[in-house]
Amino acid sequence: MKQPLEPSAEGRGRIVGITDGVFAIALTLIVLEIRVPSHEAVHSESELLAAVMALAPRFLTYALSFLTLTIFWFGQQAQHGLIAKSDRRLATLNLCFLAFIALLPFSTDLLADFLEFRVAVLVYWLNLFLLGATLFASWWYADRNGLLAQNVDADTKRVVYQRIIKAQILWAIGAALCLITPLASIAFILLVQLIYAAALRGSLLSKIIG
Amino acid sequence: MKQPLEPSAEGRGRIVGITDGVFAIALTLIVLEIRVPSHEAVHSESELLAAVMALAPRFLTYALSFLTLTIFWFGQQAQHGLIAKSDRRLATLNLCFLAFIALLPFSTDLLADFLEFRVAVLVYWLNLFLLGATLFASWWYADRNGLLAQNVDADTKRVVYQRIIKAQILWAIGAALCLITPLASIAFILLVQLIYAAALRGSLLSKIIG
Amino acid sequence: MKQPLEPSAEGRGRIVGITDGVFAIALTLIVLEIRVPSHEAVHSESELLAAVMALAPRFLTYALSFLTLTIFWFGQQAQHGLIAKSDRRLATLNLCFLAFIALLPFSTDLLADFLEFRVAVLVYWLNLFLLGATLFASWWYADRNGLLAQNVDADTKRVVYQRIIKAQILWAIGAALCLITPLASIAFILLVQLIYAAALRGSLLSKIIG
Amino acid sequence: MKQPLEPSAEGRGRIVGITDGVFAIALTLIVLEIRVPSHEAVHSESELLAAVMALAPRFLTYALSFLTLTIFWFGQQAQHGLIAKSDRRLATLNLCFLAFIALLPFSTDLLADFLEFRVAVLVYWLNLFLLGATLFASWWYADRNGLLAQNVDADTKRVVYQRIIKAQILWAIGAALCLITPLASIAFILLVQLIYAAALRGSLLSKIIG
Repeated sequence: MKQPLEPSAEGRGRIVGITDGVFAIALTLIVLEIRVPSHEAVHSESELLAAVMALAPRFLTYALSFLTLTIFWFGQQAQHGLIAKSDRRLATLNLCFLAFIALLPFSTDLLADFLEFRVAVLVYWLNLFLLGATLFASWWYADRNGLLAQNVDADTKRVVYQRIIKAQILWAIGAALCLITPLASIAFILLVQLIYAAALRGSLLSKIIG
Repeated sequence: MKQPLEPSAEGRGRIVGITDGVFAIALTLIVLEIRVPSHEAVHSESELLAAVMALAPRFLTYALSFLTLTIFWFGQQAQHGLIAKSDRRLATLNLCFLAFIALLPFSTDLLADFLEFRVAVLVYWLNLFLLGATLFASWWYADRNGLLAQNVDADTKRVVYQRIIKAQILWAIGAALCLITPLASIAFILLVQLIYAAALRGSLLSKIIG
Repeated sequence: MKQPLEPSAEGRGRIVGITDGVFAIALTLIVLEIRVPSHEAVHSESELLAAVMALAPRFLTYALSFLTLTIFWFGQQAQHGLIAKSDRRLATLNLCFLAFIALLPFSTDLLADFLEFRVAVLVYWLNLFLLGATLFASWWYADRNGLLAQNVDADTKRVVYQRIIKAQILWAIGAALCLITPLASIAFILLVQLIYAAALRGSLLSKIIG
Repeated sequence: MKQPLEPSAEGRGRIVGITDGVFAIALTLIVLEIRVPSHEAVHSESELLAAVMALAPRFLTYALSFLTLTIFWFGQQAQHGLIAKSDRRLATLNLCFLAFIALLPFSTDLLADFLEFRVAVLVYWLNLFLLGATLFASWWYADRNGLLAQNVDADTKRVVYQRIIKAQILWAIGAALCLITPLASIAFILLVQLIYAAALRGSLLSKIIG
């Protein structure tokens, strides 16, 4: 007998649909803060060039957020590729994850506006932490409740946990660097995101980022 | 002979697509009202911390709307998982449902801006009521016109109606609490949404929220 | 040998995806113009009620645009349900259709702001006309180039043309009414959209809207 | 044994989903800059007509960006129709492509606001160049790493490269025309986009745009 909202492959498909929607919107929203210079302030080619150049920090934080979104999109996808079906609680965990993705344009803008303040770095880090925490919780819940695909072995399960934890350790180190200077934090986190997004896999890097 | 817009599985797929799109956008739009503090007003770490803390009511109403969106996403999904095909009128009812989902960022912002006013609570409640009413009408229409999946029995049909009605009764109680104070309403509704979203199922709760 | 962008079922699927995306965004954008009253202007429950009531014309044009989007969503869907595959030119026609859908929030806002001006009504009508024209062109192109499903007979082909033309005639009558008064135009168009969206089918109506 | 994020058909489906989402949003965002005239400045039908006519440059750049989005949507689709599966690096290249698509509303607005400035034309051209470069890199990567469908022959592979390069040459010529006057650049690029979007194929044009 068919029941509403029992674990199903369709439920899994719906999560994929809403996830890709939220990521697509977040990717586009972070650009909206890159504002076209006001026409009144610009009277020559060189002034327009200067005005566009002055947007450089915006492009930098855009790149940072783009990398972060990329990493979590893969993180979510890596998990869901291994999950065969989804029940209501797993879907709720995934929506929590999306709620924190939707907050990323806010914490990115805060960082772009207050590059020199520790509070802005910590808010950004908190966002990264909550994203990792919900991914961790999803995996743990899916594993405990038999929602994983049958051919996922113990090794793979462990690797998924390890990757989340390793990334969190690296971001925590990055956040801690703001005790020295917030810019050190941002540079470090940007480097970490670059390595993850480009999926670089040297033998040393492999050990660190798994 | 193929006819335009006859009841079909494809029509059902299109509804799922546009539904997930609208929910994804609504989820992201409610965040847009959380505005980054102005740089002029902030000169120190402690001032930035205070400015971020001052956004707390925004985060609270964000959480409330997120929970509400979650509940109705599941509500729509629970129904559509049991509906085998969709005709034009059912699709129109679903689009009405989406129109009220699209209004949710508006009523949420109104609530966030006027936490202490009964009118704001009543507008929010009206939005919840209209969402429930369109879900109810969809289910009733699908049932009457043979659009349900074949293996949906009478019990399941009744349970879907009951859940909608029970939720409406709880929200009506919440709205009525604004006769005492609007904050009591908001706290009660927030609690109801939390219980639904987390899909808590104690033996007493089961009786109340079905 | 596989060629890039030959007519294919996948191309058709992509069109459906981007179409539902654009409609979902347009549905949500038209709400954004319904602005929460400013907190400074409101000091009592009755003032807030008055401020919310003052938004009535916005809700009216929201309803109008919602109905219009509904009608064209069905129009596009009715066609694509009968189209088996899509080539590049058909996809371009569909994107033109989407470009005019994306303009609908603009012409709706213009109408809401200038209810009493004929120019606003004519811009809105022009948008409706261009939407119908691209739907007509798509159908004509698909028919001429063998992109329709095999089981679409001559009768069905004619009905699709007729529906588009009948709707255009009704909207043209509506637009012409602005010679009397713009409000007569809006009322007439609103009525037409209501009848189409609700898919009312009396014996007289059937003859008129087909 | 199932591994996270190995090359798969599902990974390819996710890319299609997020791509269509970003394009749908970009298509709609470029309209947002077409602003309804302020009610205070308009007191008669003729003033409203003049105000709407004054938006003509906005509609022009809207048309330009719409054409550009169309061309790259087809470009991405032409490639992905020939790609059988996707790994993480290919997906990252595709996300880079989407990041530049998301920047298109910015460079379009810049162009619309500063039609007479070379810097605006060059920023727009840079955006086109980066879009082509990521498409080129995706194709090259997919080819080198055996991610193409089996029935893609050497001829087709070469044609895909050639099309990207020919388009880049045409845009570079367009950009170079801004040495004479920026308006010549815009007119030339607009013409190129029109020919591509309409998929015109005369015998001479075929040689030029391939």
